[in-house]
Amino acid sequence: MGEPSGIGPDISLLAWLRRAEARVPPFVLIGAPALLQERARALGVDVPLCTVQHLGEVEQAFAEGVPVLPLEETVEAVPGRPETANAAAVLRSIERAVALCRDGSAAAVVTNPIQKATLYAAGFEHPGHTEYFASVAGPGSRAVMMLAVPGLRVVPVTVHKALREVPPALSTALIEDTARVVHRALSEDFGIQAPRLAIAGLNPHAGEAGSMGREEIDMIAPAVAALTAEGLHVTGPHPADTLFHRAARLRYDAALCMYHDQALIPLKTVNFHEGVNVTLGLPFVRTSPDHGTALDIAGTGKADPRSLIAALRLARKIAGLRRRAGAGR
Amino acid sequence: MGEPSGIGPDISLLAWLRRAEARVPPFVLIGAPALLQERARALGVDVPLCTVQHLGEVEQAFAEGVPVLPLEETVEAVPGRPETANAAAVLRSIERAVALCRDGSAAAVVTNPIQKATLYAAGFEHPGHTEYFASVAGPGSRAVMMLAVPGLRVVPVTVHKALREVPPALSTALIEDTARVVHRALSEDFGIQAPRLAIAGLNPHAGEAGSMGREEIDMIAPAVAALTAEGLHVTGPHPADTLFHRAARLRYDAALCMYHDQALIPLKTVNFHEGVNVTLGLPFVRTSPDHGTALDIAGTGKADPRSLIAALRLARKIAGLRRRAGAGR
Repeated sequence: MGEPSGIGPDISLLAWLRRAEARVPPFVLIGAPALLQERARALGVDVPLCTVQHLGEVEQAFAEGVPVLPLEETVEAVPGRPETANAAAVLRSIERAVALCRDGSAAAVVTNPIQKATLYAAGFEHPGHTEYFASVAGPGSRAVMMLAVPGLRVVPVTVHKALREVPPALSTALIEDTARVVHRALSEDFGIQAPRLAIAGLNPHAGEAGSMGREEIDMIAPAVAALTAEGLHVTGPHPADTLFHRAARLRYDAALCMYHDQALIPLKTVNFHEGVNVTLGLPFVRTSPDHGTALDIAGTGKADPRSLIAALRLARKIAGLRRRAGAGR
Repeated sequence: MGEPSGIGPDISLLAWLRRAEARVPPFVLIGAPALLQERARALGVDVPLCTVQHLGEVEQAFAEGVPVLPLEETVEAVPGRPETANAAAVLRSIERAVALCRDGSAAAVVTNPIQKATLYAAGFEHPGHTEYFASVAGPGSRAVMMLAVPGLRVVPVTVHKALREVPPALSTALIEDTARVVHRALSEDFGIQAPRLAIAGLNPHAGEAGSMGREEIDMIAPAVAALTAEGLHVTGPHPADTLFHRAARLRYDAALCMYHDQALIPLKTVNFHEGVNVTLGLPFVRTSPDHGTALDIAGTGKADPRSLIAALRLARKIAGLRRRAGAGR
């Protein structure tokens, strides 16, 4: 469901409308049928809703309308006005999605954007979805956020940190651990046989031999050396400004970046509408559109479902690869 | 001249060869004719060299070959092997170019890339060209680096700083001063009547209301408010990751960024080959290709002259606008 006063309901309805031309895989929305009905009316779109009780009904229902698995909680939402009262339902929707994946009835979790401030007010304690899923997955698991568009995958090693907190948060171990999760996921979830990772420097010109920062020498180069010694195809530290143009993007399967904007600026510059957020390293498949709740345009018809559609399609692809790999074992 | 063992000689020769199709304005190379001759041979290109003694001869000479104003210093250089012995000649070439602009015989200085480590070894004390020109321009002047490609201009407020030194280097005054120089230059040097500036935040999501860093609240927003109060069209602080996609780029004439890679990543991602480095706020016009000396490909024929050509063309455009503005006063 995601934040019900945001564009989550809008893009879910619009994604269903494009199901044929965009080859949208069947999905079930865990939410409130009444709210979706209202939103469809606000958008002026004709989208039937099919309440389902269990996941076996989804595939057939999807041909007729948007399948909805109703939450027990009441959800009332005016577009653009998040209410703390809905926070429990938002969290419950995620929990049920995870449970349905874990028991094998669903292939993947796709999350609509959440309004973090509202969840915080209701006691949510994670900086974002990704960190929440890491805690759900249990101890020892390492959830890593990847953003993907056609032709570019980026992974920020640190994510939701103020820029001044980035250098002290980095370490050789963190970079190595992240790279290993990414390498494994590229192989298992994306079907890439010998994944190539490019690791960005932290400083301008990757520090220019230590004259503008030493993290490349002290921290990143040792991680590259250790990963290479393990047999991984890893290059870097690369100057970040020359890592993302068209020809450079062909040289790797994913770029590891040191901080949020180093990863997100090139990704959103290259393709603003089709970004998918994938959580790597989880026991279940989880993707998400790469945008926020866009409260200002909820209910107006201006929301663009392309990122959600890409998230649904990528979730199906990863789930399929995992299933085939599992069957082959 | 720039670093003689780098690609400066290569791209100068190649730019001249494309003079007709790329409408390259007449330029004179301040350097060593013998070195250029050697490089032309290495590249296998037929480019006559025309030694000139004063700038009045350049326009006519340019029709026949590359005009060269010879340096007194001997310059011997093997491609890819910078020598400290050439550092004095490299600096002398820049000084003469500036002097020729100041006395009105040249319209603009266009600098080929330099090898900073070599210049440092010879006593050069500036982090880069831009800072050198600021010192040449004299006290009270403020040289600001802008990078430009068709459809995008970016200005990093801090430039050659390690990332951990960026937050402490920022201040409301620095942002305001930089914005004023940029605003004035957009108007006077680029002929934009009511320039629009977009100012990026420092932190992910522009700090998300202070939850991921307070520089936006404490430092950037006050600068935006002060500049707006002066009548400038300034917006921000904007989340940097959503500031550079195609539709976003139409909303401003220049983006002020807080650090090097925040500005350079989107610029080089959008257009890797035609970037121009312009120094704003100087009493003379100065541009440069937006790349380094590329020692590894000097003399091989792989160097791409497009950035130098764009730098030459932009220099002519700015010089023309300044001349017309001067005539109109």
